Amino acid sequence: MELTELPPSLGIAGDAKAAMRILSEIWGERGVFTCTVGSTLTSAIPGISDAGGTPELTLLTGPADAELLTLGHTVCIDGVPVNPPEGIPTPGLLTISALTLSGMQHHIVNAGCKVAPSIPFYDVGGEVGQSIVTGRAVPKARELFERGKVLGRLFAQDCKYLIVSESIAGGTTTALATMMAIGTLRENLVSSSSPRNPRELKTNTVLEGLKNAGLEIGSCKDDPLKAVECVGDPMIAVNAGMVIGASEKVPVILGGGTQMSAVIAVAAAIDPTVVDRIIHGTTRWLVRDPNSDIEKIDSNISPRLPLVYINMDYSKSPYKGLQAYEQGFIKEGVGCGGASVAAVISSAGRITCDDILEEEHGLYRRILGL
Amino acid sequence: MELTELPPSLGIAGDAKAAMRILSEIWGERGVFTCTVGSTLTSAIPGISDAGGTPELTLLTGPADAELLTLGHTVCIDGVPVNPPEGIPTPGLLTISALTLSGMQHHIVNAGCKVAPSIPFYDVGGEVGQSIVTGRAVPKARELFERGKVLGRLFAQDCKYLIVSESIAGGTTTALATMMAIGTLRENLVSSSSPRNPRELKTNTVLEGLKNAGLEIGSCKDDPLKAVECVGDPMIAVNAGMVIGASEKVPVILGGGTQMSAVIAVAAAIDPTVVDRIIHGTTRWLVRDPNSDIEKIDSNISPRLPLVYINMDYSKSPYKGLQAYEQGFIKEGVGCGGASVAAVISSAGRITCDDILEEEHGLYRRILGL
Repeated sequence: MELTELPPSLGIAGDAKAAMRILSEIWGERGVFTCTVGSTLTSAIPGISDAGGTPELTLLTGPADAELLTLGHTVCIDGVPVNPPEGIPTPGLLTISALTLSGMQHHIVNAGCKVAPSIPFYDVGGEVGQSIVTGRAVPKARELFERGKVLGRLFAQDCKYLIVSESIAGGTTTALATMMAIGTLRENLVSSSSPRNPRELKTNTVLEGLKNAGLEIGSCKDDPLKAVECVGDPMIAVNAGMVIGASEKVPVILGGGTQMSAVIAVAAAIDPTVVDRIIHGTTRWLVRDPNSDIEKIDSNISPRLPLVYINMDYSKSPYKGLQAYEQGFIKEGVGCGGASVAAVISSAGRITCDDILEEEHGLYRRILGL
Repeated sequence: MELTELPPSLGIAGDAKAAMRILSEIWGERGVFTCTVGSTLTSAIPGISDAGGTPELTLLTGPADAELLTLGHTVCIDGVPVNPPEGIPTPGLLTISALTLSGMQHHIVNAGCKVAPSIPFYDVGGEVGQSIVTGRAVPKARELFERGKVLGRLFAQDCKYLIVSESIAGGTTTALATMMAIGTLRENLVSSSSPRNPRELKTNTVLEGLKNAGLEIGSCKDDPLKAVECVGDPMIAVNAGMVIGASEKVPVILGGGTQMSAVIAVAAAIDPTVVDRIIHGTTRWLVRDPNSDIEKIDSNISPRLPLVYINMDYSKSPYKGLQAYEQGFIKEGVGCGGASVAAVISSAGRITCDDILEEEHGLYRRILGL
């Protein structure tokens, strides 16, 4: 059907015409949701990542989110992943709510985790990413990209559209490094799960990684997988492949914040036509974040790239852990934006932000035992 | 739609009324195809299995079939898996043909392989099965069953029906052992990929395994997973879980010969109602095999169990490797029967055996370089 206007649950940035064209193609259809999880030692550098109780625990956030999505509880850690010191719970709760309401199939892809999640997952031969400071972050990047491409094609064999997303702590730092190596960015515009985005620490870590890899800004313009190999993370490698493989046949929604911009940047540097078959799907919190600029990043990749966001608003939630999103905490992750956008799409707009929030409140009480 | 008669491409054995009821429910719908691959050291006992060039190579048949299904070529061995000395190629070629024509999504599940397939696959934490002679064939059987159950539920979240199948050499021997331990069978009625079914060797191997496990016929009636643990294989554990998990929500087709009877026997011993939501899908060759009796085995499990088979006939094929099926070679494997039955279902009968054979001839020439 030809979609002429969006329901209030969704907002558009970037190329609105491209967004409406792809949304029209999949409006009212259920897609397949995937979340690629991993660990990078970059997140264990103190101060880089808040996505986990301690720097060491950030390595378990990916696998813990995977378990939560599949089982409704975690195995590799106690309780759900939280951001300290406030204990704000993982955005995976929003993801689960959106998946439950829409009835979408979901699959976990293990790009390389510190501890393998205790659930069935797609194995692509990944290993934990090294710290980008080494300049040799993902030695298997090219192989992971190829496996990702095959996996994207497998899902695209018979689905209306694919949602690709991530949970890997430290991922905005590796995203920044990857995009600087490719030349998408010359400055630090990436987001953070903390409202106190540690931009200087992240920039310095990235510059050290680039230096140790013998790279300058834009060095990897013609070999984007080298950027991932040197200063990226395993999720970027796998997801870039999945996007390219799946988008040969079906539209792809990249669910996530500036980490997914890095995935798009890599994929588009390999195949520039990919931007015509994808939507970047995220949250209102990310688009409105004063400490990052996802719109600028995406337009640097391509002015034709559409960005669709879910207008979730937690300001009236009774739970402090959710209200915190309105103060700039978390904002994205575990494909919560993409899954919510897809839930609205799948129901042709009948599922609203209010429905998703109501579902999430129930989940919040059950999972957190409130 | 209410289906009143079957197209000539399909045949029914077992409970015809149950078959028509389930077929009516899914007629004209595409399902999701899965193939669970693995290795058991049982297949390396000389003479037990012909599914591979040598006893050692039989350990690679599962992963090689997985690569073939996903990539169209193998990585872990040279060429496609064959049965010696005639070099008859894997039934995976029939599976691929049926999947191509129907456009079904396919996924590989690794239940425990000697060599991990060089493709993206579902990991369920499996390990290579030990020889059943040890009486401790699958120490992780209960864990694999649980992971399989979760995986079945994942696929069932959003699909019309699930096809569960296998490629594991030596699997009819482990199937026989499992079914004797449960008490489904008191005599050797399982099939073989050879027309010279080595029944005595298989029976003796099974009896030795049962003895070393301290089991008698029927000992595991109330604890079927103990049968798998002692004398089964990892595929049986995973697939029994998948059937139970998926059939909570959608119909399941068990694609394969007497190996899948063992899967059904385990699942039905755990949850007897499962037989009302499944179809055993196989080939005409298997049903007509004079050296085994799948109908008797299935009716021992439950008289309510429907068996639907594809009427493929290779007698007029120009290729000796396919003609051999008419002399009793191969007959089943890699879900070729289930995938073909599902192709007919998905097209509401428009895809015929002739269409599948034509597709297979093209594939045969391409893959075997004829």
